[in-house]
Amino acid sequence: MTLKVYLSGEIHTDWRDQIRAGAAALDVTFDNPVTDHAASDDCGVAILGGEGNKYWHDHKGAMVNAIRTRKGIADADVVVVRFGDQYKQWNAAFDAGYASALGKSLIILHGPDHAHALKEVDAAALAVAQEPAQVVEILQYVLTGKLPG
Amino acid sequence: MTLKVYLSGEIHTDWRDQIRAGAAALDVTFDNPVTDHAASDDCGVAILGGEGNKYWHDHKGAMVNAIRTRKGIADADVVVVRFGDQYKQWNAAFDAGYASALGKSLIILHGPDHAHALKEVDAAALAVAQEPAQVVEILQYVLTGKLPG
Amino acid sequence: MTLKVYLSGEIHTDWRDQIRAGAAALDVTFDNPVTDHAASDDCGVAILGGEGNKYWHDHKGAMVNAIRTRKGIADADVVVVRFGDQYKQWNAAFDAGYASALGKSLIILHGPDHAHALKEVDAAALAVAQEPAQVVEILQYVLTGKLPG
Amino acid sequence: MTLKVYLSGEIHTDWRDQIRAGAAALDVTFDNPVTDHAASDDCGVAILGGEGNKYWHDHKGAMVNAIRTRKGIADADVVVVRFGDQYKQWNAAFDAGYASALGKSLIILHGPDHAHALKEVDAAALAVAQEPAQVVEILQYVLTGKLPG
Amino acid sequence: MTLKVYLSGEIHTDWRDQIRAGAAALDVTFDNPVTDHAASDDCGVAILGGEGNKYWHDHKGAMVNAIRTRKGIADADVVVVRFGDQYKQWNAAFDAGYASALGKSLIILHGPDHAHALKEVDAAALAVAQEPAQVVEILQYVLTGKLPG
Amino acid sequence: MTLKVYLSGEIHTDWRDQIRAGAAALDVTFDNPVTDHAASDDCGVAILGGEGNKYWHDHKGAMVNAIRTRKGIADADVVVVRFGDQYKQWNAAFDAGYASALGKSLIILHGPDHAHALKEVDAAALAVAQEPAQVVEILQYVLTGKLPG
Amino acid sequence: MTLKVYLSGEIHTDWRDQIRAGAAALDVTFDNPVTDHAASDDCGVAILGGEGNKYWHDHKGAMVNAIRTRKGIADADVVVVRFGDQYKQWNAAFDAGYASALGKSLIILHGPDHAHALKEVDAAALAVAQEPAQVVEILQYVLTGKLPG
Amino acid sequence: MTLKVYLSGEIHTDWRDQIRAGAAALDVTFDNPVTDHAASDDCGVAILGGEGNKYWHDHKGAMVNAIRTRKGIADADVVVVRFGDQYKQWNAAFDAGYASALGKSLIILHGPDHAHALKEVDAAALAVAQEPAQVVEILQYVLTGKLPG
Repeated sequence: MTLKVYLSGEIHTDWRDQIRAGAAALDVTFDNPVTDHAASDDCGVAILGGEGNKYWHDHKGAMVNAIRTRKGIADADVVVVRFGDQYKQWNAAFDAGYASALGKSLIILHGPDHAHALKEVDAAALAVAQEPAQVVEILQYVLTGKLPG
Repeated sequence: MTLKVYLSGEIHTDWRDQIRAGAAALDVTFDNPVTDHAASDDCGVAILGGEGNKYWHDHKGAMVNAIRTRKGIADADVVVVRFGDQYKQWNAAFDAGYASALGKSLIILHGPDHAHALKEVDAAALAVAQEPAQVVEILQYVLTGKLPG
Repeated sequence: MTLKVYLSGEIHTDWRDQIRAGAAALDVTFDNPVTDHAASDDCGVAILGGEGNKYWHDHKGAMVNAIRTRKGIADADVVVVRFGDQYKQWNAAFDAGYASALGKSLIILHGPDHAHALKEVDAAALAVAQEPAQVVEILQYVLTGKLPG
Repeated sequence: MTLKVYLSGEIHTDWRDQIRAGAAALDVTFDNPVTDHAASDDCGVAILGGEGNKYWHDHKGAMVNAIRTRKGIADADVVVVRFGDQYKQWNAAFDAGYASALGKSLIILHGPDHAHALKEVDAAALAVAQEPAQVVEILQYVLTGKLPG
Repeated sequence: MTLKVYLSGEIHTDWRDQIRAGAAALDVTFDNPVTDHAASDDCGVAILGGEGNKYWHDHKGAMVNAIRTRKGIADADVVVVRFGDQYKQWNAAFDAGYASALGKSLIILHGPDHAHALKEVDAAALAVAQEPAQVVEILQYVLTGKLPG
Repeated sequence: MTLKVYLSGEIHTDWRDQIRAGAAALDVTFDNPVTDHAASDDCGVAILGGEGNKYWHDHKGAMVNAIRTRKGIADADVVVVRFGDQYKQWNAAFDAGYASALGKSLIILHGPDHAHALKEVDAAALAVAQEPAQVVEILQYVLTGKLPG
Repeated sequence: MTLKVYLSGEIHTDWRDQIRAGAAALDVTFDNPVTDHAASDDCGVAILGGEGNKYWHDHKGAMVNAIRTRKGIADADVVVVRFGDQYKQWNAAFDAGYASALGKSLIILHGPDHAHALKEVDAAALAVAQEPAQVVEILQYVLTGKLPG
Repeated sequence: MTLKVYLSGEIHTDWRDQIRAGAAALDVTFDNPVTDHAASDDCGVAILGGEGNKYWHDHKGAMVNAIRTRKGIADADVVVVRFGDQYKQWNAAFDAGYASALGKSLIILHGPDHAHALKEVDAAALAVAQEPAQVVEILQYVLTGKLPG
C-alpha cells in the first residue's frame, strides 16, 4: 500500500518538512499547494496580465492556484490540513470541506486553543492531531501496523 | 424552475430573514443550519449523554448537526455562504468547500474587508455579493430573467 | 426539510414502533425491511419455487429481500441500525457498511455491552444512541432545532 | 490482468497466509487491515493521547484504522471477507456491505454453520467458499482460465 | 415506498398487461419501451426524414427509441426483462446489462429452456421468474411483506 | 413518464415558442436560459456592481447566468440545442458538450448548411432535426408511441 | 496514449487472435473473458462444490466468471463485442449494455445479416465493423492518426 | 505531481508544438485529437466503408474520432482549448463543455476579439490566456511554484 498524502493549510512554519522528514522511510508520496506566499498571490497577474482592481488580481491568482490544489486533493488518499495560530485561514477550511465531500481521509492538525472553533471540521476527520510527529506516527501505523515507541 | 437554496454561515445577524423576506414571491425553498447557538453547541450531550471532556462534548454536537448540514447542502441547487466580521467561521468555509466539491452553485456574501482572505473561496463561487439584497436580486434574475430597478 | 429515515436491524422488539410513534408529529417518512421473520426467510421459495438445498432456499429469499433493502437505503437520508442482544445480526452490520459507503447519515442504536464489538460501526456513525427515544430526539432536533425537555 | 485483493475479517487464524502462499505465482497484489489485535485496539490513544473513557479510547482507534481499511477496500478489485467461529465480527460484515455498495467483487469465506446467519451477506457475493484454498483456485481461474486439478 | 418498475424485452405477448393488472392495487408505477413494433422500427425516418440505406433507417429509429429507453431505465428502481421464445432479443439483453451497470434491481423472466443461454444475465438478477404472476407476487411482497396464498 | 426538456442555444427566433405550443398537450416540462439578450449580458454588473473592464463585465454576467444554465441542464432528461445561422454560438456548443458528459439525451436542431461544422456535436446526439416541429414529433413519439400524420 | 481494450463476445473463431496480432505494434493492452467453453461452464462447481441442479451449476459458474468480466470491462477504454452467426449470445449483448452504461467506447463487430437485430446495440456504439481487421485499423487510427493503405 | 494535459481545438497553427516545446522540461504528458484534417474527416469511411450521403460520411468519422477525444479528455487533469480566428470551431466549444462537466481544470486560449463571444466558455475556465507561452508558464508555475522571468 502506497499512501498519497496532500498537506494543506498553514504555510508559515516548517510542519510539512517535519512530516516529510519523519516519513522518509515510509511508502508515502506527498503533495502540497505552492507555499511561496508572494508567488501564490501574484501568479495570476504575473502570467496572464496585470489588473488595476485588487479583487481581480487576487481572483486570477486564486484560479491558477486551484489547478494545483484540486489536482492534489483529487489524487490524495489522505488530506492533512493544518491550522496555525494566525490569520483566518479560510482556504484551509475550504480544502477540508472539499476533501471531505470527495470522501478523502482527513487528518486535522491544530493546537488545543482552536478546538471549539474547529469542531465541525474535526468532526469530519478520522484523526485530530496537535503535532506533526503524530501525523508521521499515524502514517507509519497505517502503512506498517507498528505503534510508536 | 424551483430553486432550492441553502443558507450557510454567520448566525449573528438577520441576513437569512432579509433574504427569505425579499424572495417571498419567488419559486424558492430555503434551508439552513440550526441557528440557535446554544442548542447547536449542546445538542450532542443533551440527547446522547454528557461528556466530562469539552472536546467530546463539542464533537457529539458537531456530529448531530452534520446530519442536518449534509442533507441541506446535498439537496440544494444554490448554497449561499455568508462570512461576518467576527470569529473564525471555519465551519462556513468548510461548507463552501464541501458544496463546491459537490458541484453546487455557490454565492459568497461578505464585506470588502474580507476579500483577500476569502480569495480562494470566492474563486469557487458563481457570485460574490456584499448585501443580502443582492442575493435576492440574483435569485429573482435566475428564476425570472428580470433585472432589479 | 423532510427526512427520509430507514430503520434497519433487530426485528424482535418494538423499537421501530416507538420511533414512529415518537416522531409522528415530525416531517419524517420511515421505511424498513420486511420484519415478518418467517415471510422474510421463505419469500424466495414461496414465490419462485422450492429448493431442496437449504442454502439456495435462503439465497433466493435473501435476493428478493435485497430489492426492498437496497431501495430503502438508497432513498434514505438517515439510516438507523439497531443491534439487539441476541444473534449475529450480520445483515444489520452489512446494511450499516452499505449505507456508509453511499454517504448516508448513520445512527447506530445499541446497549453499552456491544460498544467494543461495534467500535468500527460506531466510528462510521454521526450518532450512537442507546434508546429509541434518543433517535426521536435527534430527528426532532435536526428538523426543528429544538432540544428535548 | 492484475487483481488487487483485499483480505478482510477474521484475524485469529492464518487464512491470509494460506491465500498469499497459494497465490504466490499469480498476478495478484494483496492488502489487509492491521491484524495485530492489541495495536489495532490501542492505535488511537497511543498516537493521539489517552482517553479516560473506554468508548472514546475505542473510537479513536477505530477512526485511525479506518484510514487503512477504506483505502484498502477502495483500491481493491476483489474483497474477500472471512467469518470465523467466534465473536460478533460486525466489522467484517460492515466491510462486506461497504465493499458491496462500491461495486467490488465479493468473495465470502465461512464454514457451513454460518450459512443461514450470513445469507444476506452471501447474497451480495460472487462466490461463497469454505476454505482458503478455494479462494486461491478462484483467483487462479479468474486470472488464467485454468481449473484446479 | 413506491416502486418504479420498467418492463423491458419481449413485445409479442401480453405479459406487461398481466403484470399491470395484477399489481393494480400496489404502490407501483410502470414504464416500458414503445411496444408498437412498426412505429418503433420507423420512428426515425418518419420524423427526421427517410434514408435509402436500411442500416441508417434502423439507426435513426434506434436512436430515437433510446431517448425513452434510457429515461425509463434510469428512473426505475426495478427493471424486469422478459425473454420470449423467438428472435435474438439482443436489445433485451442489452437493457439488462445497462440496468445492471446502473445498479438497478433486475428481475429476469423466461422459460426453463433459456436457462443455460441466459446464465450470465440471470446471475446479475435478484430474481429469476417464469411467469408474470410471479413478478406481481414479488412486487407485492417487496411492498407489503405479504406472501402469496 | 414526464420528460423534462431544456431548450438551449439560439435566442433570435421563436423556436422555443413553437416547441412549447406544439407540445402543449404532452407530459413535458420545459426550461431554458434567460433569452433577454440585454439582461443576460448585464445581469452581473446590474446586481453585483459595475466593472470598468469589459472582460470582467462579461465574466460576472456569465457566472450569474451559469446558475440557471447548470440547474436547467442538470435537471433535464432531454437537452435540445439549436444552432442558428448567425454568430459563433459557442455557448450553445458548450452546453451540448456539458449535457453530453452528464449523459443527457441530446437533440440538435440546425439547418443543413451547418452539418459539416457540427458533425462532432451531432455525433453526440440521439436525434438531429431541422425544424422545431420535428422536436415536437419526437417528444410526442417518445411519450406516447404515436408517429406523426 | 495507451488504449485498454476488452474483447467480449463470440468464442468460436480466432477473431481475438487476429486483432491481437494485427495490433501487435500498437500501444494497446487487451483483455477478454475466459474463452475455454468447458472451463467457463464448470468453474463454479469445480472450485466451490458440485450442484445437483443444473440451474445452480450454471449460476455458480456465471458468478465466478463475472469477477473477471466486470474487472475487464471496468478497466477498459474500449470494449469490442463480436456477435457470431450462431447461438443467442445474450451474454455478449449484456456486456455491451453494461459497458455502454459505464460510458465505455463500444465497437460492435458482426456480419450484415445481424444488422436489424442488433440495431439498438449498434446505436450505442462508436463504430460498427464487419471484420477484425477493421478493428485493428480503428485502433491504429485512434492511436496514431494514420489511415490504412 | 505529474500533469496530464489535453490540447483541444484549433488545428491550423503550431500552438501545440509551442506548448510541448516550452514544457519539455516539466513533468507533463500531453495528448490531443488527430490534427490531420483530411484523415480526421475521412477516417470513418476509409475504415468502415464508404457512404453516398455526406452526412453519414461525416458521422462515421466523428464517431471514430470520439474514441480518441473522450479518452483524452477523461484521462486529463487539465484541458486546454484554443479558439483560432476562423471557422465555427463548435467541436472546440463542445470539448470545453464536456471537460467542464467532468470537473477538469480548463484553460482557454484565444485572442481578445473573441472575448465576448466566449464569455460563457471563459467563465468555466480557471485561466484564460492569449498566447501558448502563457500556458507553458501556467504549467510551470502549477508544477514548480516558479513564476516566469
